[in-house]
Amino acid sequence: MTDPSALDTDPQYRAAVIDLLGVLAYGELTAFERIAADAAMADDIDDKAALAGMATAEYRHFLSLRDRLVELGADPAEAMAPFRRAYGEYHAQTAPSDWLEGMVKAYVGDGIGTDFYREISAYVDEDTRALVLSVCDDLGQSAFIVDRVRAAIQEDPRVGGRLALWGRRLVGEALSQAQRVAAERDALSTLLVGGVDRPGTDLAEIGRMLARLTENHSRRMSALGLAA
Amino acid sequence: MTDPSALDTDPQYRAAVIDLLGVLAYGELTAFERIAADAAMADDIDDKAALAGMATAEYRHFLSLRDRLVELGADPAEAMAPFRRAYGEYHAQTAPSDWLEGMVKAYVGDGIGTDFYREISAYVDEDTRALVLSVCDDLGQSAFIVDRVRAAIQEDPRVGGRLALWGRRLVGEALSQAQRVAAERDALSTLLVGGVDRPGTDLAEIGRMLARLTENHSRRMSALGLAA
Repeated sequence: MTDPSALDTDPQYRAAVIDLLGVLAYGELTAFERIAADAAMADDIDDKAALAGMATAEYRHFLSLRDRLVELGADPAEAMAPFRRAYGEYHAQTAPSDWLEGMVKAYVGDGIGTDFYREISAYVDEDTRALVLSVCDDLGQSAFIVDRVRAAIQEDPRVGGRLALWGRRLVGEALSQAQRVAAERDALSTLLVGGVDRPGTDLAEIGRMLARLTENHSRRMSALGLAA
Repeated sequence: MTDPSALDTDPQYRAAVIDLLGVLAYGELTAFERIAADAAMADDIDDKAALAGMATAEYRHFLSLRDRLVELGADPAEAMAPFRRAYGEYHAQTAPSDWLEGMVKAYVGDGIGTDFYREISAYVDEDTRALVLSVCDDLGQSAFIVDRVRAAIQEDPRVGGRLALWGRRLVGEALSQAQRVAAERDALSTLLVGGVDRPGTDLAEIGRMLARLTENHSRRMSALGLAA
């Protein structure tokens, strides 16, 4: 883990942390928008209220990331701007055609995202790490979504086949946008692969990380009753 | 103003208050959904964040109404259900075709709604009244929206003509849904017109109330730079 003082002494590390908080903040803002849209699509009033509550929790996460960016002397809108295109394309390519697809997206798509950020948090200073882990907390979506998706599959098993394909597509799109971000944001990438004065992780560890991400993804698909 | 003990002793009054809290709660939930959709439509990241913050404030209003319904022994989902159709049709008939129409709707449409509920609050007990007034508070939308809409009209004056027509349509649709609710919900209507054991207001006062609603509407249109 990096020493917190690196935020003051290592401009490349500082840029990487601002990138990390920026991508997370924009992710929370779009998560807010998307879960709010899921609330609007929900038929049941109690589901609506539950989803609206989850959306506002994502907004609180956004606020804590924004406040931290301000504390670090960064402009939050500028810190988020470089990640709009990747998020925009991911969401354009994975617009849910119904409520269930929205639910699977919130669970499977966001799940692989937060897993990835949790992995990254091993490479940053303690304060940044605590913030990243706190905004990656499950907000109660999981239990809610697992319940609703399993019930829908039980009612009509064909739904399971369609949603399994959908889950695979979500991960494919998420990976291709993650690759784009890695290619475009040098500072962020050096958190993993290291910089001039800072060692990164080795290729074997990156392999293990990808294996963990894949396993967790399969575990989530199974929890929903879907083939990964 | 009605005595709070009427909530225990007058079943018709109790039903009216539950209707009032139900229609307000469902209104807040749909306001949450709609302002969140406006946030998603916003181009500017700071606008997005500001609108997301307003949406979460609407959700907090929803929570306080829901908690009060539970306190009164009512089922919140049941209390809200009778108003879904009116809200659904209002929103279906007034789906904004762009972000500016969404902004005018949030200001002019919600404005006439909260004005109406504030008027109604004169006829209920003190506790209910305080709650109704608190959820009708302006959440900072007004200054934000006035600023954005005026800027858009300054940039392209033709926008003003289109939005003025839009504002008139919003009020027309809101009134026709309000009439439907009044016709369908006897208990709620008796708050204004009185019940068996409770005097209502007189026709002259209802006329003055309508005049106040109309004046406030015109004032809001002018604030946006629109002809009422």
